[in-house]
Amino acid sequence: MLNKKQWFTEIHQDSSALSFKYKKTLFEGKSPFQTVKIIETKSHGKMLINEDIVMTCERDEFIYHEMIAHVPLFTHPHPKKALIIGGGDGGTAREILKHKKIKNCDLVEIDSMVVNACKKHLKSIGSAFNDPRLKIYFEDGAAFIKNKKNHYDVIIVDSADPIGPGKVLFETPFYKNVFEALKPDGLMTAQGESPLYEQKLQKTLLKTAGKIFPLAGFYNYGNLTYPGGVWSFLFASKKYHPIKDFKAGRVKNSAFSFRYYNKDIHQAAFSQPEFTKKNLGTLWKL
Amino acid sequence: MLNKKQWFTEIHQDSSALSFKYKKTLFEGKSPFQTVKIIETKSHGKMLINEDIVMTCERDEFIYHEMIAHVPLFTHPHPKKALIIGGGDGGTAREILKHKKIKNCDLVEIDSMVVNACKKHLKSIGSAFNDPRLKIYFEDGAAFIKNKKNHYDVIIVDSADPIGPGKVLFETPFYKNVFEALKPDGLMTAQGESPLYEQKLQKTLLKTAGKIFPLAGFYNYGNLTYPGGVWSFLFASKKYHPIKDFKAGRVKNSAFSFRYYNKDIHQAAFSQPEFTKKNLGTLWKL
Repeated sequence: MLNKKQWFTEIHQDSSALSFKYKKTLFEGKSPFQTVKIIETKSHGKMLINEDIVMTCERDEFIYHEMIAHVPLFTHPHPKKALIIGGGDGGTAREILKHKKIKNCDLVEIDSMVVNACKKHLKSIGSAFNDPRLKIYFEDGAAFIKNKKNHYDVIIVDSADPIGPGKVLFETPFYKNVFEALKPDGLMTAQGESPLYEQKLQKTLLKTAGKIFPLAGFYNYGNLTYPGGVWSFLFASKKYHPIKDFKAGRVKNSAFSFRYYNKDIHQAAFSQPEFTKKNLGTLWKL
Repeated sequence: MLNKKQWFTEIHQDSSALSFKYKKTLFEGKSPFQTVKIIETKSHGKMLINEDIVMTCERDEFIYHEMIAHVPLFTHPHPKKALIIGGGDGGTAREILKHKKIKNCDLVEIDSMVVNACKKHLKSIGSAFNDPRLKIYFEDGAAFIKNKKNHYDVIIVDSADPIGPGKVLFETPFYKNVFEALKPDGLMTAQGESPLYEQKLQKTLLKTAGKIFPLAGFYNYGNLTYPGGVWSFLFASKKYHPIKDFKAGRVKNSAFSFRYYNKDIHQAAFSQPEFTKKNLGTLWKL
């Protein structure tokens, strides 16, 4: 049995659980939106936990953040303005701002406690918070985006699960607003949950995005800290196709020091196992 | 805290843990080699657990078994004789025997208790145990293979972790014997551990295989029940290349009802993230 004083446990659907041994709690707070905790684990570095759900940790955060950011930014041929909805740990901003073409990046995080705790305790993830191109808004992302029309090249929805404050970020009105906030050749990615555990949710999400965007589908990645390990991002685009319009040479020329992403992974991530194909069928528009 | 009466927990490197809620224990025994247990979980079907480590479960076993078997069998243009070392649950045999070209399949499992428990309690995995082309030997696989020369087209090492009885299956003398047991155009796959958690072991394994085989590398897959979720198989071959010699049309023509594997996944699985490329570097021979 795992001692609660030494182990943090996230229970998933009352049927499986992931636990991490930890040395100490670095931060613990309760914002108007959620509980926020940062722990120092034994072997996964520092870990951000909201509402007893692992958000990110130092050991493998690079996978999530590189994949949510570079797939859209290397698909869009000339991204200048980017928006992050959520992403309070700063990891997605760090990856976006590696792209010199990006002139402005807005980050809209509903919970200032997350940003402030990460600024203090998760510095390797939030290393771009002081970049002058980044502007942080402590607002409701779903409300913020209503006032933006034809404005962004890339929008990234770096959200938690569709419960609590993140729920609206999985629904049709929000996707309509994202579509309108994008320029005529804009595109988006969003945290897309587990293809093994969340088949119904993925189907609903793809149906929602596919009704609004001409191109929509998922791409996959693996990580250590989300239930099941195999997870997805939703990709939706007005114009550019993530494989056909992808220029592998740009990845090489960027000379970024990736830890997960590369040109092969970009393309391979869109390959779907049979169970996903069967689940999503004709909703697939890539 | 997870109640031990309701939850099975596998602890990994004393730093992370995976737990599954269960309804009852269907089988529990102690063989000369290990403890063997089959439980009925709440949401992952029946689960085989050896030495308190999850081996396989009904919910996602198809991923592991399709990937360990069909990648080599669709790479080799005319596989007739196959050998499984380990694989006592029968899942790999089930997938191999879908190939009508296979005339004989030998399965060498050191622990008869595993086979007998799975025959009784995990029938969906062991559904090919009665196929007349399958011959089961309750022997030490490492010893068995010493007496086979120039005999098999495909050898599959369906082993647990490199501890206990499985340790020798990760070492040089064994790989030399596998090489000699294969025909001049033979190839092999082996359970290759986690690319995120076992970087050192993967490096040693690839060095071992790469000294003996002209072609050697890893391919990846995701699952729900092994620590970290992202896992690998080793691929080593005397002649056929898993991408260049792969004929996608054969997959389509097979008309097998896959649940994970398909032609895209076959190719995508060989794409390596940057951290793997950096870890394995010049050892890579694919």
